[in-house]
Order: sequence, then C-alpha cells, then structure tokens
Amino acid sequence: MTTIEQLGFVKEAVDKLADQSTFPELFSKYDDDDPIPSGKILQEIIDLCRSVLFPGYFGNPTVHNHTLSFHLGVSVERLLQLLTGQIQAGLLFGKEADADSEWKRSCSRRAKLLAVQFVGTLPELRRVLATDIQAAFEGDPAASCIGEVISCYPAIRAIVNYRIAHELYKMNIPLIPRIITEMAHSETGIDIHPGAEIGEYFTIDHGTGVVIGQTCIIGHHVKLYQGVTLGAKSFPTDESGHPIKGIPRHPILGNGVTVYSNATILGRITIGEGAVIGGNIWVTDDVEPYGRRVQRK
Amino acid sequence: MTTIEQLGFVKEAVDKLADQSTFPELFSKYDDDDPIPSGKILQEIIDLCRSVLFPGYFGNPTVHNHTLSFHLGVSVERLLQLLTGQIQAGLLFGKEADADSEWKRSCSRRAKLLAVQFVGTLPELRRVLATDIQAAFEGDPAASCIGEVISCYPAIRAIVNYRIAHELYKMNIPLIPRIITEMAHSETGIDIHPGAEIGEYFTIDHGTGVVIGQTCIIGHHVKLYQGVTLGAKSFPTDESGHPIKGIPRHPILGNGVTVYSNATILGRITIGEGAVIGGNIWVTDDVEPYGRRVQRK
Amino acid sequence: MTTIEQLGFVKEAVDKLADQSTFPELFSKYDDDDPIPSGKILQEIIDLCRSVLFPGYFGNPTVHNHTLSFHLGVSVERLLQLLTGQIQAGLLFGKEADADSEWKRSCSRRAKLLAVQFVGTLPELRRVLATDIQAAFEGDPAASCIGEVISCYPAIRAIVNYRIAHELYKMNIPLIPRIITEMAHSETGIDIHPGAEIGEYFTIDHGTGVVIGQTCIIGHHVKLYQGVTLGAKSFPTDESGHPIKGIPRHPILGNGVTVYSNATILGRITIGEGAVIGGNIWVTDDVEPYGRRVQRK
Amino acid sequence: MTTIEQLGFVKEAVDKLADQSTFPELFSKYDDDDPIPSGKILQEIIDLCRSVLFPGYFGNPTVHNHTLSFHLGVSVERLLQLLTGQIQAGLLFGKEADADSEWKRSCSRRAKLLAVQFVGTLPELRRVLATDIQAAFEGDPAASCIGEVISCYPAIRAIVNYRIAHELYKMNIPLIPRIITEMAHSETGIDIHPGAEIGEYFTIDHGTGVVIGQTCIIGHHVKLYQGVTLGAKSFPTDESGHPIKGIPRHPILGNGVTVYSNATILGRITIGEGAVIGGNIWVTDDVEPYGRRVQRK
Amino acid sequence: MTTIEQLGFVKEAVDKLADQSTFPELFSKYDDDDPIPSGKILQEIIDLCRSVLFPGYFGNPTVHNHTLSFHLGVSVERLLQLLTGQIQAGLLFGKEADADSEWKRSCSRRAKLLAVQFVGTLPELRRVLATDIQAAFEGDPAASCIGEVISCYPAIRAIVNYRIAHELYKMNIPLIPRIITEMAHSETGIDIHPGAEIGEYFTIDHGTGVVIGQTCIIGHHVKLYQGVTLGAKSFPTDESGHPIKGIPRHPILGNGVTVYSNATILGRITIGEGAVIGGNIWVTDDVEPYGRRVQRK
Amino acid sequence: MTTIEQLGFVKEAVDKLADQSTFPELFSKYDDDDPIPSGKILQEIIDLCRSVLFPGYFGNPTVHNHTLSFHLGVSVERLLQLLTGQIQAGLLFGKEADADSEWKRSCSRRAKLLAVQFVGTLPELRRVLATDIQAAFEGDPAASCIGEVISCYPAIRAIVNYRIAHELYKMNIPLIPRIITEMAHSETGIDIHPGAEIGEYFTIDHGTGVVIGQTCIIGHHVKLYQGVTLGAKSFPTDESGHPIKGIPRHPILGNGVTVYSNATILGRITIGEGAVIGGNIWVTDDVEPYGRRVQRK
Repeated sequence: MTTIEQLGFVKEAVDKLADQSTFPELFSKYDDDDPIPSGKILQEIIDLCRSVLFPGYFGNPTVHNHTLSFHLGVSVERLLQLLTGQIQAGLLFGKEADADSEWKRSCSRRAKLLAVQFVGTLPELRRVLATDIQAAFEGDPAASCIGEVISCYPAIRAIVNYRIAHELYKMNIPLIPRIITEMAHSETGIDIHPGAEIGEYFTIDHGTGVVIGQTCIIGHHVKLYQGVTLGAKSFPTDESGHPIKGIPRHPILGNGVTVYSNATILGRITIGEGAVIGGNIWVTDDVEPYGRRVQRK
Repeated sequence: MTTIEQLGFVKEAVDKLADQSTFPELFSKYDDDDPIPSGKILQEIIDLCRSVLFPGYFGNPTVHNHTLSFHLGVSVERLLQLLTGQIQAGLLFGKEADADSEWKRSCSRRAKLLAVQFVGTLPELRRVLATDIQAAFEGDPAASCIGEVISCYPAIRAIVNYRIAHELYKMNIPLIPRIITEMAHSETGIDIHPGAEIGEYFTIDHGTGVVIGQTCIIGHHVKLYQGVTLGAKSFPTDESGHPIKGIPRHPILGNGVTVYSNATILGRITIGEGAVIGGNIWVTDDVEPYGRRVQRK
Repeated sequence: MTTIEQLGFVKEAVDKLADQSTFPELFSKYDDDDPIPSGKILQEIIDLCRSVLFPGYFGNPTVHNHTLSFHLGVSVERLLQLLTGQIQAGLLFGKEADADSEWKRSCSRRAKLLAVQFVGTLPELRRVLATDIQAAFEGDPAASCIGEVISCYPAIRAIVNYRIAHELYKMNIPLIPRIITEMAHSETGIDIHPGAEIGEYFTIDHGTGVVIGQTCIIGHHVKLYQGVTLGAKSFPTDESGHPIKGIPRHPILGNGVTVYSNATILGRITIGEGAVIGGNIWVTDDVEPYGRRVQRK
Repeated sequence: MTTIEQLGFVKEAVDKLADQSTFPELFSKYDDDDPIPSGKILQEIIDLCRSVLFPGYFGNPTVHNHTLSFHLGVSVERLLQLLTGQIQAGLLFGKEADADSEWKRSCSRRAKLLAVQFVGTLPELRRVLATDIQAAFEGDPAASCIGEVISCYPAIRAIVNYRIAHELYKMNIPLIPRIITEMAHSETGIDIHPGAEIGEYFTIDHGTGVVIGQTCIIGHHVKLYQGVTLGAKSFPTDESGHPIKGIPRHPILGNGVTVYSNATILGRITIGEGAVIGGNIWVTDDVEPYGRRVQRK
Repeated sequence: MTTIEQLGFVKEAVDKLADQSTFPELFSKYDDDDPIPSGKILQEIIDLCRSVLFPGYFGNPTVHNHTLSFHLGVSVERLLQLLTGQIQAGLLFGKEADADSEWKRSCSRRAKLLAVQFVGTLPELRRVLATDIQAAFEGDPAASCIGEVISCYPAIRAIVNYRIAHELYKMNIPLIPRIITEMAHSETGIDIHPGAEIGEYFTIDHGTGVVIGQTCIIGHHVKLYQGVTLGAKSFPTDESGHPIKGIPRHPILGNGVTVYSNATILGRITIGEGAVIGGNIWVTDDVEPYGRRVQRK
Repeated sequence: MTTIEQLGFVKEAVDKLADQSTFPELFSKYDDDDPIPSGKILQEIIDLCRSVLFPGYFGNPTVHNHTLSFHLGVSVERLLQLLTGQIQAGLLFGKEADADSEWKRSCSRRAKLLAVQFVGTLPELRRVLATDIQAAFEGDPAASCIGEVISCYPAIRAIVNYRIAHELYKMNIPLIPRIITEMAHSETGIDIHPGAEIGEYFTIDHGTGVVIGQTCIIGHHVKLYQGVTLGAKSFPTDESGHPIKGIPRHPILGNGVTVYSNATILGRITIGEGAVIGGNIWVTDDVEPYGRRVQRK
C-alpha cells in the first residue's frame, strides 16, 4: 500500500465518519454560547462541596480556625458560579430552541435560582453526612479515628456525591445528578442512583460493586457490605417495547437492616426493620422484620 | 543513628536495588529511539477515538454541524500518528534487536499500515457501538435519553475500549490491546479481555465486577448485570507446569442470553439462546436454550 | 427572589457553615508548619516506589542499563524527602500539641528515621513482589509475558501498594498506610487492609471486589479470584457500644489455598492448606486441609 | 508581638484593604456573566493567528500538505469563538449597564460580527506580513533562510501582533488592541501602538527599545534599528490639565527611510522619503527627502 | 566513535562536572528542611499582591462587590504563608549553620514577623501606587481610561514590583527584593534597584531600557521615558580591588523632573527641581532647578 | 449579516488561507517522523544546562553534596537525548529529502555525535562562565554575593545561553543556536548573535538593549552597559541585491574595553585595548588603545 493509497483510505474513512445521516443520535451538536455539561467542571464542583463540608480534609489543607469563613465565602461563590452554568447545561441538554429565545433566558434565570437553593441545603446536608460518618466509624473496628473515615473511606466519598446529586435530582435537573454519582461510581465502585431515598446513619463497608437502584427506599441505620445489589427484577414495557419510566421497581429496606457482601435483592419487595441478609444470596421476596436469610448449604 | 549512618544505610539499599542480576525480568531496558508503550498516550488515543465516534459528547464540546469534518480530519490525523507509535512499541515490546536493523524498520512500516487499517474500521465500529447504546437505552428504565447513556454509562466506556482493543487484537499487536481494556477496567470495574468475541446490541448494567475471559464467544442481544464472571474453570499445563496458551476455556453465550448480578459461569460450556441465569449462582455445566437457572433456596 | 434576597440566602448558608460548633469533628484545623497527609504526594511516593522497583516499566521509560544507578539515586533521595514529610504528617495527624514543642521535634526526627528504615526494606520488598509476579504469570494462560503482568495487571498494582503500606503499618505509622491501600482500591477495586499478613507467590485474578480484612493471615501460593471477601462476621463492642479494636476477626488461609470468584469467607476461621473454595459461596466455618466447598445446587 | 497581636495586625490591614471607598478606581467589579478581557485568552488568540498565518512554524508542527485545510478550519473556528468573547469584553470594559439590557445584547451581536470581519482580513494580513518577512530576510546578512526569520526574529513577532491589533483598533474595539501590542512589547521589547499606520516591507532589526507612537504614519520599505523612538514632543492639555486625546503628535516617515539605533525622533515632523537618520541622535525638526542626519562629533 | 566510546566520553564529562573542588561557589548545597528562594513562589507572591492591590484587574477576575473581603482574606493568608517562607530563605541564603540551631529558629520567627509587617504596609502602598497610576494616565494622551493603565502599562507592573521590593529591602532582607525587581525587569525591560528611593506620582513612559541605580533619590512627580539611565560613573575599590559597597553613587532628581528617552545621567549629581533633560544626552554634572539640557546639534 | 452569510464569509477566508500557492515560504510542511525544532524543548535543554552548570541554583534546589553525581548523571542523560533530537531537527530544517534516505540516517548519527561532543565541552564552559560571574560580582558594588549574581543577574542568563549557542554554532548546526540566543533576548533584552567571539571575564551591566553582531570579536575583561550596540554600518549585496553572507562587518574590541550605556559602535573597526567609550555616542571609526570617546557637549 503506497502512501497515496493510505491517504485515500484514511480520507474515505473520514468521509464516512463525517456523514451525519449515519449517526444522528451519536453527535451532540453545539449551539453557540450554550453551556455544556462538563465532567471536569462537575468534578471541581464536587471538590468545592467537599472542601466546604469538611474544611481542611479536602481543598486547601492549611485552613486556620480564624480564616475559615473567608475560605467558605470564596468557595461558595465559586461553587454558585460553576453550578449555575452546569445546571443551565443540564436544563438545555438535548433540547433544541431558537438562540436568544425567551425560553433559553428563563433557563438561565432558573439555573441561578436552583444553584442558590442548593447552597441553602449545604448545612443540613453536612448534618446528615455527619451521621453517616459516625455510623462508619462505629461500625468498623479497623477505623482508628473520625479523620481516617473522612479522609479515606470510599463509602463516604460515594455517599457525599449521592447526597449532593439527590438534592439536584429533587429539583428535576436532568443529567447532572447522574454524572455526579457516576463519578463516584468510577472512583469507588459504588453505584447509587441519585433518585434513591436513603435515611441517616447510612454506611457501606468496603463498597466495591454495590448497586442501589433509582426507586429504592432505605431507612435509617442501614448497613450494606461490598457487592450488594438492590435492583429491579424486571420492568414493564410500553406497546413499542420501551421500558416505562418511573415505576417503583427496587426494594424498600426498613430501619436497621444489614445486608452482607454480594447479596442480590431484587424487585419492589420490603426487607423489614432490623432484618439481616447473609452474603451471596438471591432474594426476590419480602423479608419480615428482624428476619434472617442466609445461603442454603 | 547518625546522619552519616543513615546515608550509609540508604546507599547500601540503592546499591542492592541497582544490582541488575537480582531482578533481570523486572527491568525494562531502553534501546535508543525505540518507542515505548505509554499509558498516557494510549489514553489520548482512546480520547481521540471517543471524540471521533461521538463528536460533541467527548473531546471538544463546541463542535458545530458545519465544522464537523474539520474536527474529524484533525483528530484522525493525530490518532494515526499516535497509534502508529504505540503499535510499533507493542511490536518491539520485550524483543531485542540490533539498532538500525532491517527488522526494526519493517516494524515501523508495519505499524503505520496497521494504524491506517484501524482507522478504516472506525465507521463500522461506530455502527456496532450504536447498537450497544440502543440496547443500553432500551434496557434501562432509568435512562432518560440516548445522550445520558453515551455521556455517563460506564458500560459504554468499557465496551468502546473493548471494541477498539479487539480490532487491534485481531491484528496480532501485542500488549497494546490489553492495556486499553485494563484502562477501562480501572475506570469502570468491567474487565473484558480484548480476545473475547462479542455480538451486537451488547449491554452490561452497572457493570462493576464483570469479568469476560479471553476465549468467550457472546452472541447478539446479550445482557449482563454487575459482578458477572464468564471465566475459566481450570486450564491444562505443559510438562514444565506452565499453562498452555490459547486453548478455548471460557463460556459460549447464545443470542439473547441474560445473566443476573454476581453469577459465575465457568469453563467451555454453552449457555443456549435466550437462557436466563439468576444472580449469585455458580454454573459449570451447559444450559439449554431458553433455560433458566436460579440459586437454590 | 431578587438578587438581594439571593445574596442574603447565600450569606445565611455561609454563616451556618462557618459555625464551627456544629461540626467540630469534620474540620481539620491547621497548625502552622505542620505537614499534612497529602493524597497527591502519597501518589508521587507510590510512583517513585514503582519506578525504583520496576525501572523502565514505571517512571522514566528511557532508563538505560548504564545509567540505572543514577536514576535510582535521584529517585530514592526524592522518596526519602517526601516520605519523611508524610510520615511526620501521619504521626501528628489528629494530635494537638504546642507549636515548637519537644514532642513535635521528636516526631520530625522519628519520621526521618522511619523513612530511612523503609528505604532499607525495598530490596527485600522487590524480592517478594517478584514471587507475586511469577505466580500471576504462571496462573494465567492469557498472560503473554512477564512485562505484560508488570505493566497492566491490576492485582500487581494493588499488591505493590499493599506490601508498601504493610511495611509502614508495621512501623505503627497512623493513617498513611490506609491511604495508600485505598489509592489502590480506587484504581483496581481491590481492597486489602494494610494490617493483613500475606505470604509469597500471592496472586489475585481480575480482582475487582476483593476484600481482605485487617487481621487476615494468608500463607504462600494463595490465589484469589475477583469478588472474594475475607471478612469479619461480627465483632464485640465495649460497654459504650463501640467496637473493640484489634481483635483477630478475619480468616486464616493456609498455603496453596484457592478461592473462586465472589466467595465470602467470614470470621476467624481457618481454611486449611491446599483447600479450594468454589465461587459465590458463603463460608463461616473452618475448612479442612485440601477440602473443597462449592455452592449447593 | 504575640500570635494574637499578629492576627489583629493582619486583620486590620485586610479591613483597610477591603474599604472600597479608598480605591474606587483600582477595583474592577464583576457583573455576572460578562466576559472579562483575559491576557491568557488573548495569548491563545495570538497563538492561533500565528498558527493560521504560518502553519507548521507555529501551533501544531506536524501539519501535512494534505491536512492543512482541516487544521485551518479547526483553528479559525476556535479563533472566532475566543475573539468574539474578548471583543465583547472590550466593548463592555469599564461600562456599567443593567444586566440583561438590550445594549448588552447588542454588544454581544456586534462582537460576533466584528470577529467574523477580522477573520476576513487574515488573507490580506498574511500577504502584507510576507512583505515584512521578505524585508527582514533581505536586510540581514546573518539570516540564513526565511524559516529562521519566521521562527525566531523578535521583530516579526512584534509586527504580527501589531498588524493584528491594528485591524482591531480600526474597528474601534477598546483595550484589546493595546493588550495585544503590550504582549509583544513584553516578549520583544518592541512597543508599537496599535493606532500607528505602517506600510509594507517594514522591518526592525534586533528591536529592543523601539517605540512607535499612536499617531505615527510610516511608509513602505522603512527600516528601524533597536532603541529607535518615534515619539511625541509635548501635547496640549485641556482646561483641567488633562491631555487632549487623538491629536496627531508623532512623526511621519516617508517610503524607504532608515533610522539607526537609539535615535529619538519627536513630534509631528516629517522625515522625507529615503532619508537616513544616524544613531543616538535627537531629531525634532523635519528632514528633507534623501537627507542624512548624524550625531555631531 | 562507537557507542562505548561515546559513553566513556560522556562519563568523563559527568565526572569532571561532579568534581566539586573545581566550582565551589557555583553550587548551592542544600541543607535539609531549609527553604530556598524560589522564583516560582516569588512570582505567586507578586501575583497575590497585585490581586490584593487591584482586585478584579489581577487574580480572580470575577470578584463581586459583596465578596471582596472574603477574597482579600484568603489571598492575604496565602501571601503571609508564602512570604514567610521566602523571607526565611533570604535570611538563610548563603549562610551555614548547624541544623536545629537556635539561630535558625530565630530566623524562622523573624521571617514570620517581617511578613506580618509587610502586610501592614499594603494599604499605604496602594495609596502611593494610586498616585503613580494617576500620573501615568494624565501623562499619556493615548491612555483611554484608568483601567487600561492598570491592566496593560508595563511601567505600572515595574513600579508595583519596585515598591513591594523596596519595602522588603528596608527590612534588610537579602536577595528577595532583588529577585522581585529582576522579575519585572525581565517582563518590562525596566530595571529599578530595590534600594532606590522614589517619590509619589512617579511615571515611566514605554519604559524599555530604563535603569535606576541602588542609591538614586527621586522626588515626586518625576517622569522618565524609555531608555533613561540613572547610573554610577565610577566607584571606589578597597585595597584588594573589590568595589566598596553602599557608597552613594547615583543621581538625585528633584520634584517634577522630566528625562527624555535614552538620556544617560551618571554619578552622584543633582538634577534640580523641574529640570528637563532632552533625549540621547550624556549628563555627568549637576543641572540647576528648571534647567534644560539637550543634545548639541 | 445572517449567520449563514457569516459562515460563508468565514469559509471563504479559510479557503483563501488554505491556498498554498499564495504563501509557499510561510508554511513549514511536515515530513513524517522528522523531528522539528521546538522552542519548548530547547528551553528544557537550557534549563538542564543551567542545572548542570550551577547545581542547586537552577533545577532541583534540594541537591545535597553527596547526591550531586546522581543528579548530574540523570540530567546529562536527558540533555543528550533531547539535544540529539534538536540537533537533528536543525540539520534537517528546510531541507527536502526522501524519507528513509541514507542522508537522513546520516543526519541522525551525526546529531548523536555532536550532542556527545557538546556534553564534553560543559566542564570548560563552566570554567569560562565562572570568570564571567567573577567579573560581574567585582564590577558591581550593588552585588552582595556570588549567589545573587548567579541567581538573578540577567546578563549571566544571556551569557550562559550565548556560550552554549556558540559551541553549537561552531559545529555548524543551523537555526538551533539562534533560537537559543533569541530565548535569552526575550528574557533579558540582551541580543548576542551566537557567531560572535567573546573572551573571558565578560560582563554586561543591566543589559537591556545590548546588541552584539555576528562577526564581533571581543577580548577578555570587557564590560558593556545597557543599550550598547556593536553593529554593522552597511553590508555589500550581490548582483541580485541580496546581502552577501559571512563578511566581517562588526567591531573588534580589545582586552579591557569598557562601553557605557547606549553607545553605538558600528562597522569593522577596532576599539583598542583598554579604551573607554562614553554613553550615547555614535562611533564609526577606530579608537586607539586606552583612548577615550565621549559625547560632544
């Protein structure tokens, strides 16, 4: 194959790749000036949230007692600015509209308002996360201090992302919440859908392989081990065979439930308060309060 | 221990570490001017592929309709250049040869040719990936649009890397394909060996912990859940106890098979068309078409 | 909501976030000049160790035969410098002390000494790691050469981090060892506590989801597959309900044990020499030497 | 001074610094979403222009014959995007206006139009710059080839920036043109005001210390040496003592004029066609065509 | 020359270079834990000062009215921290002392105190700089607004660095002040020694090539043009031929003096109030108040 | 202008820009695999040279006595590698040749040899530079120590680059030497052509605006002040009007000459040993040994 033939070959490939009719849905066309969801900026947003929620542990490590409020002020201002842009990007994602239209401007205003509203939830978010950290510390004999839990427990990273994403999910912001939980999924192997509802004092030990589905409802003081799936058994489809969105299809776990490693719990079933599910087990029926299920030997 | 004693101690350690006779196989000696496989460049290659296959979703987000072909041209040129270097690095990896030898120059020419050939497969690769994306979208009630699947589903990232690596694997390029699938493994927890053969409309839900072995053969419309292993039960060794390479030892899955989370399927067995394997189960025998296996209770 | 109202709302949130009384344990207050454990620096330390242990494979790829000792000298010097700082940070972590106190200065001297001591262990560490690499190569028919195992097997990355962290753990350095194994956990999905004791020729295939607890004792020539848990069944608490630290609570595995994917082995039980544990099984009792356990069908 | 006293001292300084009444003009207050002139982005704009005007010499060095148009397309698109933002920033600079006002939106539209218009001038700009390069090459026995002149002659860098800035200056864009020539000033020591009018085949040898004022008019084939000043002698002020803007106050140089190093030419005088001004001389009166002025000995 | 001969040749060069006896003064030997003056950190210090003195123009451009004090607080804290380290590095520079000695610890305390003291001068420094900016604006018909002067006039950059360095020089901190003015010298071509004393409303037009010597004394409302030298004619040496340090040897300029481009004024002479020095002139004698000197024609 | 019209306008500009016939000499066409001179890599080469010549002052600041040779070994190896590539790029610059031709391969071998040869000159280069540093220190009452001269005197930076470039110039390597001196020109305002021959104990005070032409010959113990030009008065052209290359056309300065600021010395004249040239003077005739020239008053 001569160089000329090679060039022809490459050119042909480029022409095929540029034929937009062959892949309409795989191309995200850009409209001038519309922000675009950005994994990099969302990561900075998460880093800012972590630095605001756990100062000194994340972000600038040299925060003094007496300058904390300066740091919080600067971080929250930047957070607002970045989050406004990403929320707007989420609202516009996949939509087509005339440039300069009133609808676009309303998205911009709404994004700003939602970002402000999110910042307002941070103190309560921190209060709840403190319960999760407490639960992780008390549930692990290997934990030597609270600082160790905050600094290096992957479950805490995943739960922080989830709780942030869940707030944004409740505001009906598309896409952004999911990207945030997937970032934690990649970092920790823990996959919590932002739509799940999870109570206080929640903890996951080790965590790799945990999956928590979109319509799960989880009580307080629940503990999961690595590899646990809270999934859907099956789901109804519409006439054209597409799955119907939004139907409750994942388990409900009562307060104080413990699920051991690699257990799979599927469908809209209820695991009663205080129940214990052993490892490597496949559960598709309700479990009574304080019940116990283990793999048959 | 005085500072002088400390220095002596450190020096002694450095001398031991520098004694090449004690670790001949752990040292990759450099020959001048030979390229070396580079994780960083391979990541850039994958990023370029993603930006070429899904413009706007990956790479430069501000691609317009009317400038798409410019972007593709620049990206493909860069891809060719980098890939040529990495393929050459793969061909030379672990080989010893005289500098300036004819064999080395032939590797360089072959690398260029293979890179050109790879670019030629990109349009077909995109067509097949579109079927995978379609399958993921239709198989997940939580997916709100195709864009969400492309942007943030880890399975798509893993399958893109696998399909790229598989093309390079079929060209008998050493090492490079494996590094590419391991990059996705680290990012997503999904470990697909580049040697596996996988049909269209393939999807993996959540995905962390999935393992697909080197000699697997997977049909169309197959769906795996997180934690599924398609592995080898055991493998024959030669007289000196080394495993014999290349023997088929992983499962064959027919069209339309579904495997639920954490199931382990081992050995050169066949899971027949349309079969369903429940979660947390250990399967080492054939399953008949449309069969169903679940964990015993 | 007017801009003024929004600003007030944000200000109120910042004030609440700055109220230190509400989150005393979530704030890592900085003392001037004390080093702070840094994930970024610890990553550089690991990268330096990898480049010293496997020259050419990690770090500068263009290391020649005849300049190896220069590179080792520079890398070990930098390693000493960074490690001294991080060990000191670990010793001070969570402690309060007068600035300029004698205790602080003694920590500084001790950190230097421990870093020197760590460097002294590197040659032996490399010898042991070579056995792990050998085991991985011989245990995987898909491995084409030793270089492939070193370059891209996630288990090797995880075991390198573990063996480094274990040395630091034995020196009673707080926090740092755990951060190092969590870095590998995030990169590979393999979670080995730095306190575990693991023999030579240790290998993990694929690896995602593996958990090895703090008090595990593992013999030589042990092989684990992905998703295997070596965990604790339960643990005693003190009168105030806190878990008692340091009690042996994880399994003991004899020489030559093999555990297949997703098996869960819990509690201070003993898996006898040469035993084989099948996949997806839940084991809470001792297994006799050369015993075999598989999931019941 | 105790630590507490130090903190008080610092706090007092911060409070004084934050008192905006004391420095109203030194604080550039930000309005949400308005772009701000950015030296970093303007540098990227200049780099893009250089790569478009002299492909291969600047920007991506690996541009082939057959892929040039792809590169130009991508670079021009990015140039348009960045320049639009910076022109808008220039138009808004120092202005106050209601957010969301019609005037702001008109600035945005005008910025886009001007950026498009600027791109339209690039081919002519390149034609003129080619004459400058030719003149530099023919005027310097030390120049070994055209490529050397383009690659490393500071005068070419300064003239490129000037000719770009002059186009933007003619469009009445505030601030941006000046920042662009100051960037070249810092890089080369050559300070050309964007308002000056300069003919073709213009060249500056060495160049450090050259100053060319705002209202200069320079013919074709003019050559300046390092340290030459074309400045203003004095300027009228209005009643309040402020200098009156825009009055012609710098020299006019005819075609073919040569000015040797460190000569200072001041005021609205005319240096006639073909005149030669010797070095280190102070000229404040007209010089006749083909005249010669040297320092008196 | 064979590869082996080449290696020998290189090795020989390295051995010669490593022979410390041949270049004792050209090697800055490192003492553990002592900070070292760092151009990179000093640049960050200057950037912080600029952002504190002219918020919005330098540093983060998106500073709002209502968050200014947060930004100042964070910037000043960081400034203190970095400056303390660099002052300490200056105090230790070129000194030899026992590690851990009382003298070293006193340097550390003194550095902190001096850094605090420097921060205390910032408000006054800003007041004086505002007069310089005012003078530049009123002295240049080409200046369209104050913002343009602050943003892009090189003289302002040079004077800011000088005024900062002069404060540190008055505290007898070695080396650091000089590095700071040399940074501006490189950026602007304006070389002001930190020891010079310069009054308010000082301005330099264009500026490249200006030199202001260590013992210059300059009044208020002085204006210099590019290329002006205020230098020493000669200086006495001691018996061993070394120049005697600290003797006044540079000019004194009264209030309201103007010096045109490329004039050279040498020696401890006095240029009287209101005098005007023409360009390209060599002045080595006193000039009377309101006198005028121009080049002889 | 509608968006469509704008696009058409931009497209037209791109088409004109892509018409290679209109700018053949302004386009550096890339041949596969040929290295290209790179400002960024040449800067790294200079930084490596500085760190090898003045360890601790440049490059890694934490070099200890006892690890110096490790650092030198690593730096020299990297220097060799980078310099080989850049010398080869210089040899190929502007040449056209068949890929894979014998001539190209000979360039590659020659580049390696020349790079080795350059490394061999480093010890002597350091010896000469030490004399320049000595001269700068003894000639400046403001210099407080040798370390200050090495760290922050721009003249030393310029002379280092010149002496490096001069060695490469003597090897007949095209382009690369000039880029190296232009880098120093931009950094310091001092423009020394790499072809000039300069003796030991050479010093330049302040330096901005100094120009030293290609065929200058300068003795030992020469001192120049800022703004001094050693240039060409005129130069002969060939029949087609191009300047004839390589004719001696710049001044010869004897030992011990001093030239004050802004003096301009032009043409192949001789300034005799020990002569002193005053500032702001224009000299085009020989000056006798120990002569003195000052501006006429």
